[in-house]
Amino acid sequence: MNITLAQAQKVIAAAEKKSKELDVKMDIAVVDSGANLTAFARMDGAWLGSVDIAIKKAETARFFDMNTGEIGKLSQPGEALFNIEHSNNGLITFPGGVPLKNKSGDIIGAVGVSGSSVDNDHAVATFAAESI
Amino acid sequence: MNITLAQAQKVIAAAEKKSKELDVKMDIAVVDSGANLTAFARMDGAWLGSVDIAIKKAETARFFDMNTGEIGKLSQPGEALFNIEHSNNGLITFPGGVPLKNKSGDIIGAVGVSGSSVDNDHAVATFAAESI
Amino acid sequence: MNITLAQAQKVIAAAEKKSKELDVKMDIAVVDSGANLTAFARMDGAWLGSVDIAIKKAETARFFDMNTGEIGKLSQPGEALFNIEHSNNGLITFPGGVPLKNKSGDIIGAVGVSGSSVDNDHAVATFAAESI
Amino acid sequence: MNITLAQAQKVIAAAEKKSKELDVKMDIAVVDSGANLTAFARMDGAWLGSVDIAIKKAETARFFDMNTGEIGKLSQPGEALFNIEHSNNGLITFPGGVPLKNKSGDIIGAVGVSGSSVDNDHAVATFAAESI
Repeated sequence: MNITLAQAQKVIAAAEKKSKELDVKMDIAVVDSGANLTAFARMDGAWLGSVDIAIKKAETARFFDMNTGEIGKLSQPGEALFNIEHSNNGLITFPGGVPLKNKSGDIIGAVGVSGSSVDNDHAVATFAAESI
Repeated sequence: MNITLAQAQKVIAAAEKKSKELDVKMDIAVVDSGANLTAFARMDGAWLGSVDIAIKKAETARFFDMNTGEIGKLSQPGEALFNIEHSNNGLITFPGGVPLKNKSGDIIGAVGVSGSSVDNDHAVATFAAESI
Repeated sequence: MNITLAQAQKVIAAAEKKSKELDVKMDIAVVDSGANLTAFARMDGAWLGSVDIAIKKAETARFFDMNTGEIGKLSQPGEALFNIEHSNNGLITFPGGVPLKNKSGDIIGAVGVSGSSVDNDHAVATFAAESI
Repeated sequence: MNITLAQAQKVIAAAEKKSKELDVKMDIAVVDSGANLTAFARMDGAWLGSVDIAIKKAETARFFDMNTGEIGKLSQPGEALFNIEHSNNGLITFPGGVPLKNKSGDIIGAVGVSGSSVDNDHAVATFAAESI
């Protein structure tokens, strides 16, 4: 099971819509079930540094099939996965990356959102993920 | 002068349209005037290896403000720019990258297309560039 | 809106002047609005390791349009952006990177300074930024 | 023996002067005797891709204490140093990089110029090197 470009673009459009509601400017990335980039959009004026972060959030969410923020709890000093961010050419483990599932519950990819507070990033990613 | 997301998405849509006419599956990347990723789409079934190539073609076209194939002529053994591909974390210098200009002729970004023959890649990129 | 070389060199000169007042030796980098290197100077005897840090500070300040030290507060263990430094081929998130604005308030680039205490780095960067 | 920042900035200024005479826009880098970046300038409108190439030309000239074009003759297919460009995180071996010597003939650094034809790049680098 793999995401289609049409689905990925629907996810991007949903993320853009939610971002405008929240009055924030986001970088939005969608990867497929192989963690390969499928679609991307940088809203006008969104942070340049968030291009890479949005992509890494999407990758990270698919690498481990969970929300990026969950990994971040375990990567703190003293925790089980301390500094896991050094793997895979750099993970991003704070909120904003969310797995994408089809109606049967299969993971078909992931979305990563970056450009505002992590709460906003996560809210936009979650809204976008539910659009499928 | 910098490309907007709306313009970049129009370029992607034009590239998708042309690719379907040619019955090919493409990865399509758009960078802005600072050579930063602005929009991306991988058509269903397009080569995974072309994700990076499409992005590098777009970057290369903006790095030197010319079609990528022009640089490739000069980077051959014995030519003036032999092995220029080792710069900038990797250039792609065969056809498929084309600068994007606004109606005044200012360069506002670039598009990179990869997934078929270089002739098809270039044809799709050129068609897409003319859509602005 | 993008910084000119003349403006960037003025920023460098101001940073050198302030560094001499403080009796410190700095590496000073200026990037443009696309986060691309525009001007650089290493004062005689300044740390070699600060070449890359000054450049990364300037990039980081432009990537997120804020002083690098602000990001560093949020990237601590337990904070919202823990380990954000793994993105973008390496961020530097302690003080010394400052966005550059024109008289209208548009961000036109950023300056990064490294070579002394972070307080001195930030003082020199701020002084330099105000020279535009 | 090592280049000073004052000398490096004189080299940059000479390169800018010569570039304006030739009506070309150059990226200009100066490294010291340790091949570390000492000064850099990107003339307004110079190619973004030439930032890295100018730096790599300067490094390459100092890495081997000869003009970059000399190395390029030896890095061709079938020649002694074929594909030496893969070393040192990427060399640039076409003309435009020139060692810098003091009046005693000691090599104190190197200059790299990129932004036009390799003939112009070399002419500007040579002119700049003679300004010391």
